[in-house]
Parts: sequence; structure tokens; C-alpha cells
Amino acid sequence: MPHIGLPDALPGIRGPMAFRPETAKPLNELVDVLLHGPHTLSPGERELIATFVSARNDCRYCQTIHGAIAAHHLNGDEDLVAAVKRDPERAAVSYKLKALLVIAGKTAEGGKQVTPADVERARQQGATDLEIHDTVLIAAAFCMFNRYVDGLATWAPDDPEFYRRRAALVAEHGYAAATLQKSTP
Amino acid sequence: MPHIGLPDALPGIRGPMAFRPETAKPLNELVDVLLHGPHTLSPGERELIATFVSARNDCRYCQTIHGAIAAHHLNGDEDLVAAVKRDPERAAVSYKLKALLVIAGKTAEGGKQVTPADVERARQQGATDLEIHDTVLIAAAFCMFNRYVDGLATWAPDDPEFYRRRAALVAEHGYAAATLQKSTP
Repeated sequence: MPHIGLPDALPGIRGPMAFRPETAKPLNELVDVLLHGPHTLSPGERELIATFVSARNDCRYCQTIHGAIAAHHLNGDEDLVAAVKRDPERAAVSYKLKALLVIAGKTAEGGKQVTPADVERARQQGATDLEIHDTVLIAAAFCMFNRYVDGLATWAPDDPEFYRRRAALVAEHGYAAATLQKSTP
Repeated sequence: MPHIGLPDALPGIRGPMAFRPETAKPLNELVDVLLHGPHTLSPGERELIATFVSARNDCRYCQTIHGAIAAHHLNGDEDLVAAVKRDPERAAVSYKLKALLVIAGKTAEGGKQVTPADVERARQQGATDLEIHDTVLIAAAFCMFNRYVDGLATWAPDDPEFYRRRAALVAEHGYAAATLQKSTP
């Protein structure tokens, strides 16, 4: 049961977002820029970073919904999402994304864990300053979202189909727009 | 030295914010709602929560600037800020704030650490759902800001006077407005 009075029907972060629209607005704007907007990293790659960090932080709602959004962008390849969560170095993703996932994982442990060698490895695989910046900020932002969702003890649906339906909506319309559609999945 | 090319003159989070204004905008909007806007918790109390979490996360820039802003709001009482960072239970703050600082500290460790008993304690000291929500989100947000600042290896000035001057500016104008004043401290 959530620690505070949240709308019953809304799972995960959507309960607190409906409870506090003043903070939901910049939170959705942030995640739209980082994950949904135009970028040299594909939406699937950015969602994999968010999913990987959420899995490391053991946040069930976030890793499941962002995993579903990642899979949606990756032609439904849920096995690839599972492989990245398990061990990015052995997953079938680019060398650049592997290097960025190391930076993301270390950012989640604590910012000081990221070393010049980690950044140099990403750079050698072609990562730009913007891609490195956004990887750090995506990882940092999901350290926020995961704690927000779990710190208020929000609930997460069990049915994988729920997440797939919601993922399709977010992948098409973005986070801010999908949040306004209260009657949909 | 920062991991990516950031404007030399800007310390802490202000370098990456100048580098990526698209994400700076929602980040400043978020922190303005949480720390600077109208609230039943005073700006000093909310800045103490941000400072406490940043100290737990060992982020020098964030704990120093938000500690200075807290002190500015608390009639310059830097000793009180230091006492809260050291041990909130023994600091001269309200029982309600002590209970909220427990929730903030546990959110920083990981959202699942927050227990119904922690929330009940805060409620018995008069905390509202909104105050509990915002405490969790302030703590979660500073887990993001701290990792953003340290994950990019930004620099932090040594001179305490720098932070006091900047604190006065932020306390008066808010975060978004202070960030736009690039030539000031």
C-alpha cells in the first residue's frame, strides 16, 4: 500500500504524478528530452540505459515499463532487453552502447565511480560529449525516478500485457502526452 | 577536470546546465517547485533536506551550495546546517523535520528502505501527505543532482564566500532566474 493517499487506479510513478502535477510537469519534460526527443542515440538505446539502471536499482515498475518501451522501439525484442539487464557486455548491442552502459552503471553506484578511463573507452567507440552527458543524466535521473516510485511504496501491475500496451502509447506520443491520457493503459 | 568539455568558469551543476539548456530548463523548474516555491515547509527546512541528502551522497558542490542557501534562509546560522549534516536527531530542528530527514536519508539509500513506521512517525509530528511526498522527491532529486555533478567530474570552488554570495542570489530570485544570470557569482 502506498505511504500516502494516491489515486488507486494509477500504477508506479503515475500515482504521485497525478497527486502532484506541479512536479510531474518538469519530470515529464525532462524524460521527454532525455528519452523521447531527437537524439544521436536511438530511443531504443536510451530506453535500454534507463532500463539497465532501474534494474540495478531493483525498481520493478521502472525496469518493466522502460524495458517494454525499449522492446517496443527494438521491434519487440524482449530477449535483447533481458540480455542487457543480465550482462550488457555479452548482449548484442553496439560497442558504444556497452561503454555507455558502464558509465550509466557507475553513475548509479555514485557519480565519483565514473573514471576518465570509462569515458575514454566510450569516446574511442565514437561517443560524443552530448552522448556521454546524456548517459550520465539518464542514469542520474533514473536514480531519482526509482527512489520516487519505491520511496512512496507505489504499486506495480503483474500483467506484462499492461506494460506492453502502455509502452506503445509512450513510444508513440512521448511521456508528457501519455501522462495526460488518464483513461488509457 | 570535467569528463566532457564544459564552460570553464561555471562550477558544479552550472557547467552541465550551460552545456545542455534543454535539460537545464526542467531541472531548474523542478527544483524551484520543490525548494523555492510556496510551501508549508519553509525554504530553510527544504534546503536542509537537500543539504542533508547531498552530504550523505558525499557531493561537495551540492552540500556546500545548498547548505549556504539553507543558512541564508535561517538567518545565517551555519552551525545549525552543520549540526543537521552531522546528526539530525541532535540538531535544533523541529520533531517534524527530524522525522522527515529520516525519510529523506532512507530514500537516498534506496526507496524500499522507507518503512510505514517512518511515515507514521512523520505523520504523528504533523507531516501532511504533501510534505511526505515532497520530502521523498527532494531526496530522490538530489540523488540525481549529486550523481549528475559528480558523474561528470565538475569542479567545486574552495572559497566559502563564493557559496554565500551565490546563495543570496538563489534565495532571492530562485533557481531558474539565478541560472540565467551568467555573469554573477
